[in-house]
Amino acid sequence: MNYNPRIARLSDWLASERISAALFVDVEGRRDPNIRYLTGQPGDALLFVLSDGKAILIPWDINLARAIAQAGEMIPYSDYGRSLSVAVEAIVQREKLAGSIEVSATTPHLVVEELQKVSGGCEIVCRSKGLDELLTNLRMIKDPQELKLIERAAEITNELLVLLEVFLTQSTDVTEVGVALFLEGEARKRGCEGMSFESLVAGPARSYGIHAFPAYTGAPFAEAGMSILDFGVLVEGYPSDVTVTVLRGPLSPKQQEMVDLVQQAYDLAVGLARPGTEVRTISAAVDELFQRNGYSMPHSLGHGLGLQVHEGPYLRNKPEIVTKLERGMVFTIEPGLYDPGAGGVRLENDLLVSDGGTRILTTSRMLRLR
Amino acid sequence: MNYNPRIARLSDWLASERISAALFVDVEGRRDPNIRYLTGQPGDALLFVLSDGKAILIPWDINLARAIAQAGEMIPYSDYGRSLSVAVEAIVQREKLAGSIEVSATTPHLVVEELQKVSGGCEIVCRSKGLDELLTNLRMIKDPQELKLIERAAEITNELLVLLEVFLTQSTDVTEVGVALFLEGEARKRGCEGMSFESLVAGPARSYGIHAFPAYTGAPFAEAGMSILDFGVLVEGYPSDVTVTVLRGPLSPKQQEMVDLVQQAYDLAVGLARPGTEVRTISAAVDELFQRNGYSMPHSLGHGLGLQVHEGPYLRNKPEIVTKLERGMVFTIEPGLYDPGAGGVRLENDLLVSDGGTRILTTSRMLRLR
Repeated sequence: MNYNPRIARLSDWLASERISAALFVDVEGRRDPNIRYLTGQPGDALLFVLSDGKAILIPWDINLARAIAQAGEMIPYSDYGRSLSVAVEAIVQREKLAGSIEVSATTPHLVVEELQKVSGGCEIVCRSKGLDELLTNLRMIKDPQELKLIERAAEITNELLVLLEVFLTQSTDVTEVGVALFLEGEARKRGCEGMSFESLVAGPARSYGIHAFPAYTGAPFAEAGMSILDFGVLVEGYPSDVTVTVLRGPLSPKQQEMVDLVQQAYDLAVGLARPGTEVRTISAAVDELFQRNGYSMPHSLGHGLGLQVHEGPYLRNKPEIVTKLERGMVFTIEPGLYDPGAGGVRLENDLLVSDGGTRILTTSRMLRLR
Repeated sequence: MNYNPRIARLSDWLASERISAALFVDVEGRRDPNIRYLTGQPGDALLFVLSDGKAILIPWDINLARAIAQAGEMIPYSDYGRSLSVAVEAIVQREKLAGSIEVSATTPHLVVEELQKVSGGCEIVCRSKGLDELLTNLRMIKDPQELKLIERAAEITNELLVLLEVFLTQSTDVTEVGVALFLEGEARKRGCEGMSFESLVAGPARSYGIHAFPAYTGAPFAEAGMSILDFGVLVEGYPSDVTVTVLRGPLSPKQQEMVDLVQQAYDLAVGLARPGTEVRTISAAVDELFQRNGYSMPHSLGHGLGLQVHEGPYLRNKPEIVTKLERGMVFTIEPGLYDPGAGGVRLENDLLVSDGGTRILTTSRMLRLR
């Protein structure tokens, strides 16, 4: 990966906004994927990017950072007693920063106050439409380096979907945990960094939950009824994200209706997903289809995929969503319906917007077993 | 679980502080285990606790919440268009809240500002020594219900440690992912909700990382040298957390020195961990031992265990840490040393402070293989 253009893009923007530096913080409980986007460092670090183009990475584990990350300068966090205030005070002084320093919009209120005290007179800026918006927009359009990783993640996912079908048809006494660990083992064997999230593997008794809890158990999977499997793999930080609903045995009329409606919604959404389309209109069309049939979907239609499994574009039917599909966007379409009695059904694939149209990267489908 | 005493304790405190309500928010990227502590709801929800004792849970997935959680009232988040502002505005009006509403100290700056606009004149309070401190202190002392779950997690962990030893001695071509998935499969079979965190399984080539990244790969584990395995299991939200260093073959003098020092540090710390002891002094003693021998530990000596795998008491050698060990505290002791050439070594077990002393709940040790 070449991170220089990303750092350059950010420091140019800082200069144009008359901001001296951007400060990113990634700690337990408050992750910031922008640090990985800008340096390759997967987490547990501070990052200063200055308007003059300098990038200073301050990782918790300097050995790991030296092996993995790239930045103009790296300083062990222990040099500052692993204290955010001490590190910020030191860098502000050493770099003679003046004016203002911008932090993420998600920075806690008390941290903003704390930083204001040690910033040597610099103003700590925290805006919803500033630094975060810039990076959200940059990251929403994937560059060729990113697309290569996302396509590799999709490819491995598709291999896993084939293996899954064999696994489900040839094994007896299949459990949720059996499916989850089978997929993870195959993914890691293929060099994946991990799963995109804790796989959600919910047999018929638990599939009514949008996100089953616990994610998987020793309960049977793919028994009579509707079972949901939602998973993805990570390739160097970039995810896939698919959902298969496994259907077994005669379904009740209600279950069949739910399956048909979700398939119809999926086809409708894929058909509408073209470059230039407002994502809100796609969501609205699906909501309208469900409502017309007396159902409603308790989650959004889809989301962008990148260093965060959930990022822009957000496919939601809300007036404030004005995103249009653009070349380089990668996102999921995942309509679903859930009923405490009948169970749940969801179908999810990943799409890439190219010049001419959209390409469906993954091959998940309703999986009907005898 | 009986959550009523916890809600009562909190509302009494709110009344004494003249705060009308506490608002907890758990969303992706910003988890708040206090919601689970107070209602059993594992996440994706808002929770209002009023000074009159009322608890209003607003979950993203109402079906799941009805199956799992307990609260005086539950309202689907979709009733408010899944919007924090809309929900807060509605509850403030309906409950005729006046005065002030306290939120977590980790609430983002911009969220505090947003809430201030919809709170109908109520002041949004965000203090480091307020609501969060109360709950940190309550949660730091485990009650009998919690201890039962933690002891069960430790028991399962100890079974897994025995199985691990058999697995490592009887298998050939052991990989990091093989170990990780073996342990997870055995844990889930025993009814665990999941692992406490993504297991860290680092063969000799990667054990120099404090937290190996990726957490586990297809690389060999337990080859000649020092391999680190750091894992735990969750029982109804409560974790164990242990680290085994696997030693194979003749170690270099440097490796042997590191192993001996870590064992010595562990024994020293366990010996000092008695009710009434300041945790800082235990950390200081270990730091001093390492320094005297020309080493330094790049992380803290240990941490409390509860609904968060890392919570109070924090065993750190910092002047602001004034915690003393008290009956009902559960914490790890985990000295470690890391060297890019020699590899890493860490030994970690979980301890419970009882009336008479401390009890080591888990049975991890340096594991020497031929």
